[in-house]
Amino acid sequence: MTTAKRDTYTPETLLSVAVRVFNERGYDGTSMEHLSRAAGISKSSIYHHVAGKEELLRRAVSRALDGLFGILDEAGATRGRALERVEYVTRRTVEVLTAELPYVTLLLRVRGNTRTERWALERRREFDHRVADLLKAAAAEGDLRADMDMRLATRLLFGMVNSLVEWYRPQAGTGYDREQVADAVVRLAFDGLRTATP
Amino acid sequence: MTTAKRDTYTPETLLSVAVRVFNERGYDGTSMEHLSRAAGISKSSIYHHVAGKEELLRRAVSRALDGLFGILDEAGATRGRALERVEYVTRRTVEVLTAELPYVTLLLRVRGNTRTERWALERRREFDHRVADLLKAAAAEGDLRADMDMRLATRLLFGMVNSLVEWYRPQAGTGYDREQVADAVVRLAFDGLRTATP
Repeated sequence: MTTAKRDTYTPETLLSVAVRVFNERGYDGTSMEHLSRAAGISKSSIYHHVAGKEELLRRAVSRALDGLFGILDEAGATRGRALERVEYVTRRTVEVLTAELPYVTLLLRVRGNTRTERWALERRREFDHRVADLLKAAAAEGDLRADMDMRLATRLLFGMVNSLVEWYRPQAGTGYDREQVADAVVRLAFDGLRTATP
Repeated sequence: MTTAKRDTYTPETLLSVAVRVFNERGYDGTSMEHLSRAAGISKSSIYHHVAGKEELLRRAVSRALDGLFGILDEAGATRGRALERVEYVTRRTVEVLTAELPYVTLLLRVRGNTRTERWALERRREFDHRVADLLKAAAAEGDLRADMDMRLATRLLFGMVNSLVEWYRPQAGTGYDREQVADAVVRLAFDGLRTATP
């Protein structure tokens, strides 16, 4: 007699359970046993879908990274002045982050203890560099203030955007919708809070 | 025969060891045994200084909170237009955060599992509210854009400031000095990255 739930998981639904557990316990603190209990299926059923927890991590952070890198290929990120492109990328980054919240949260918490984690950190840095390059291009075109270090500006911009994973929750009625947050981030970052001098 | 280090700690120096261990392992994941090993003194020597790990946490987050709340009593935070006061508070918050980096880092990572942690979270929220009130006052005086929700702006501002604990390291030669970072945060938040329209 067994009380185990029948395995009705697909790799996709199993992934969403794993990401939730990784975010709650930390990737290091999660064992296959924890995943098995959270999913309500046996460890061997999980191994039927994936080779192990590192594969789940790789799939999860890939989903976040594919979302982010996808932005850079969109028309808004490739045409027009650098300033328009970097504003577009900032807005879309907020949209992808809030749409893929658990996946991006996991990506941002990766530590670097395994090969997959180091690869994820490397890809994150690559994305940050691509955005930093856009900011530098916008500065070179004269559209961004010359009195700001663009590497520091990039860090602060990502600090603001990434901090959304700490408090933004998409549930309706509890706060702000995605577009409102994206608008606010772009406005604050590029125009600042101060009333525009007429 | 013992190899234990002689206890030459003061409550202050013991605190700095404890904060380092709390930040590395998380407060929940730290035992008195971990603290004893990191300090190189026996558990009973630690109990000579403090009642337990929760007292060390309380002292550590108090140091961060005292630094932050102290800002609000400074002349720059209490005189002049609200906009000047909130710019001052933002700048000083960056300065306190970078000067007291391990203590503020610990404060920002507190989870709420113990009475001390819940108290710390409550005090943090109070500080955030005080800054939000200043932003609202500056908006009411017409100095901040009317098209921004000031509660959302507060969250984004703190998101940017607090993200410094993730990457800012005060060691000379590796990056930016405190004033440079404080300048950049204030400039980005209040004036934005875009070139001012002449």
